[in-house]
Amino acid sequence: MSARRTRIVDLIPAAAEGANVEITGWIRTSRFGKNISFVHVFDGSTPKTIQAILTPALAEAHKGDLGVGAAVRITGTWKASPGGEQAFEVAAHTVKIVGTCDASDYPLQKKRTSMEHLRTIAHLRPRTNTFQAVFRVRHAVSWHIHRFFHERGFLWIHTPIITTSDAEGAGELFEVVATGESGEPFFGRSAFLTVSGQLAVENFAQAFTDVYTFGPTFRAEHSHTTRHAAEFWMIEPEIAFADLDDVLALAEDFVKSVAEGVLTDCADDMAFFDRFIEKGLLDSLRAVLDAPFARVTWHEARALLAEAEAQGKTFEHAVSAPGFELQTEHERWLAEEHFGRPVFVTNYPASQKAFYMRLDDEETDGVATVAATDLLVPRIGELIGGSQREERLDVLDARLAAHGLPAETYWWYRDLRRYGSVPHGGFGLGLERLILWLTGMQNIRDVLPFPRTPGQAEF
Amino acid sequence: MSARRTRIVDLIPAAAEGANVEITGWIRTSRFGKNISFVHVFDGSTPKTIQAILTPALAEAHKGDLGVGAAVRITGTWKASPGGEQAFEVAAHTVKIVGTCDASDYPLQKKRTSMEHLRTIAHLRPRTNTFQAVFRVRHAVSWHIHRFFHERGFLWIHTPIITTSDAEGAGELFEVVATGESGEPFFGRSAFLTVSGQLAVENFAQAFTDVYTFGPTFRAEHSHTTRHAAEFWMIEPEIAFADLDDVLALAEDFVKSVAEGVLTDCADDMAFFDRFIEKGLLDSLRAVLDAPFARVTWHEARALLAEAEAQGKTFEHAVSAPGFELQTEHERWLAEEHFGRPVFVTNYPASQKAFYMRLDDEETDGVATVAATDLLVPRIGELIGGSQREERLDVLDARLAAHGLPAETYWWYRDLRRYGSVPHGGFGLGLERLILWLTGMQNIRDVLPFPRTPGQAEF
Repeated sequence: MSARRTRIVDLIPAAAEGANVEITGWIRTSRFGKNISFVHVFDGSTPKTIQAILTPALAEAHKGDLGVGAAVRITGTWKASPGGEQAFEVAAHTVKIVGTCDASDYPLQKKRTSMEHLRTIAHLRPRTNTFQAVFRVRHAVSWHIHRFFHERGFLWIHTPIITTSDAEGAGELFEVVATGESGEPFFGRSAFLTVSGQLAVENFAQAFTDVYTFGPTFRAEHSHTTRHAAEFWMIEPEIAFADLDDVLALAEDFVKSVAEGVLTDCADDMAFFDRFIEKGLLDSLRAVLDAPFARVTWHEARALLAEAEAQGKTFEHAVSAPGFELQTEHERWLAEEHFGRPVFVTNYPASQKAFYMRLDDEETDGVATVAATDLLVPRIGELIGGSQREERLDVLDARLAAHGLPAETYWWYRDLRRYGSVPHGGFGLGLERLILWLTGMQNIRDVLPFPRTPGQAEF
Repeated sequence: MSARRTRIVDLIPAAAEGANVEITGWIRTSRFGKNISFVHVFDGSTPKTIQAILTPALAEAHKGDLGVGAAVRITGTWKASPGGEQAFEVAAHTVKIVGTCDASDYPLQKKRTSMEHLRTIAHLRPRTNTFQAVFRVRHAVSWHIHRFFHERGFLWIHTPIITTSDAEGAGELFEVVATGESGEPFFGRSAFLTVSGQLAVENFAQAFTDVYTFGPTFRAEHSHTTRHAAEFWMIEPEIAFADLDDVLALAEDFVKSVAEGVLTDCADDMAFFDRFIEKGLLDSLRAVLDAPFARVTWHEARALLAEAEAQGKTFEHAVSAPGFELQTEHERWLAEEHFGRPVFVTNYPASQKAFYMRLDDEETDGVATVAATDLLVPRIGELIGGSQREERLDVLDARLAAHGLPAETYWWYRDLRRYGSVPHGGFGLGLERLILWLTGMQNIRDVLPFPRTPGQAEF
């Protein structure tokens, strides 16, 4: 597209002192003075702006149209800027106003606006510094996810969004109905928006060995937390000829590789988050990348928590209570206080996990466990959930029955265990949670382009 | 993942004569004879199989479990194969049956099965030669789409799937309802599955200049054709500071770059399609890549068709009829017979196109036209539809009114024309249609992992 325009991110390293350049973009700030007038122009390709110095004549001619938000095309001479943060400067020769911006009612004025208010103008917030950084990072994360898997020979499988199955055997679903539908449903029976592509993608793992999904998933939960949205994107790799150890190795490699990629590609944006959103972010991410993730079984984790409790630590949910399950407070203590780094908890009680997770060969303390794992990460809690899948048909059938699920519904899933069944497993990871962790942003609504939550599907 | 296993595609170039190797995968074919027995193993990483030669003792020990579909782990010595197509051979030392396959009812036996039948076992068809090739190519196409945009600095924007807007102002939609919902709808008003991310992504083009969507889209059409599915994936780039010429240049560059990438990465699979699915496929694709796409206005196209008609060519829909619109027969004649290569038709009558397309500055033959384009491609017909968007608020408002659309619904879309509006445009392309064109496959159901069509949402 170089014939069309030069992006600012490409212009900066290429332009030489005295060269004639053309910049296109939108005005971030402008200042008109007696002796000097300038505008700062951004185009989204980088957090850096170009400062265009206007002659008094140019300033006089265009002053009224060069407010915040206006679109411009400026030609001029590239010159070194006399110090300060603004290192990129153009002495303007011509200014063309491409699109004016009515300053009297433009919602993005210089003053700080709240995150809440910006959500009501989600069509304009991508122009602000914070959301410029958020969506550049969101792209970089997504790109490095694909890059990671592609380099390792995984195939991206587009598992269906509309489904008549439900991976968890429960959950609050959205139903899909053709408008004006009456009588026979469009798909012949009730259809829903997917909550996970895992069961579907397992079919492909047993044909291509290494596969993954990366697509939207849905929950019709009436939660109004900072971590839940009705629509979010999920990544679910699935590998065959693999056990739980292989799943853990893949997950650790994945998290580190994607984080490294983003830190490299978005160094300026990450510095922005470190400075304005979460102090110490970069140090905290670097620490994660430099050390191996910890690993502990669920029973070991419970023992550690019990020991802390015995030594005076108070948890809202007592560790010794019958039917104990790990709560957020325990997860945070493990990752943040005890290990001080990401930790895989493995081999959860079977009663706490889904039917498809592989039953461990031996019980622990008389408790049947499954080859499941959650990856707990400081600041964010659970980042990844995964497991080895049950590949033995007789065990799977017993687990389906124990969960009260009808075997007929899972006929094709059971078929995989009849025809060349192999040990296999995978994990699921929410894209937005990964972005929250990487950026220090606090609310899932602020890392989604147009968030969908109860009562909210505008834009 | 090299610690876990070596993929066959990596093993073949790396293994040296006499080396000890281990192969994991599923049996494609097996033969047991008095003097020689062998199995062919695939793992999905390549269309190539490895032939494992079994000693009489190994064959005797495992014969009953080494049928088609069984999962195996075989160690042995790598050796050059004595000619023929099967160039990769292992003299087996050990054979481990990872998962048996009940040959008595395994649906994928050696005999050819119809595409229709394979759709009823969509969980198993990825193991067949044809669908192995289809889904490797589907991945490669998807990868090269991301690669193309990423290299050019475009950001991937995840526009919402659930929406209260509708890009076309019409169309058969799926409605989304929370299960058990009564009274107040989940999102506060009626919500639908998206038919296009274009309007939403335009917001981001006006902040980041170059952006694209790549996600699932939906149509609740009761069509039972080979080209329609209720759920399919679409790619929609959107570029700012751009006119229709820029959109055409981007589209041509995109199609050629992605096709080149797939031809390079999937040479074996593409040769398979050329040989078994569509004779002459590779020559036809090469011809497309080597020549510039043609370009003609709608009025010029109509004149060409009228001339052909005058010279005796018969069309079902007469070109001289009032309110003439290009039909498939005309599109095919233009791309296949007249130009013999892909052709952009541009500047369609405004009355035939959507409200958001930019009104051309001058009429043609007294007809108001818009800066729209369709890319017509031999064998496939329309591959891409795009346009420059209307960036002038007054013209947009007039077009909304002419289409009977309420301006209030489009308040945020109209805002873009008030605050730093810029000429911009983009196009949309159906992923499955691109794959049909590249592979010669005939039915959209056979390039989707689990197709959703009227009456069908199994798996």
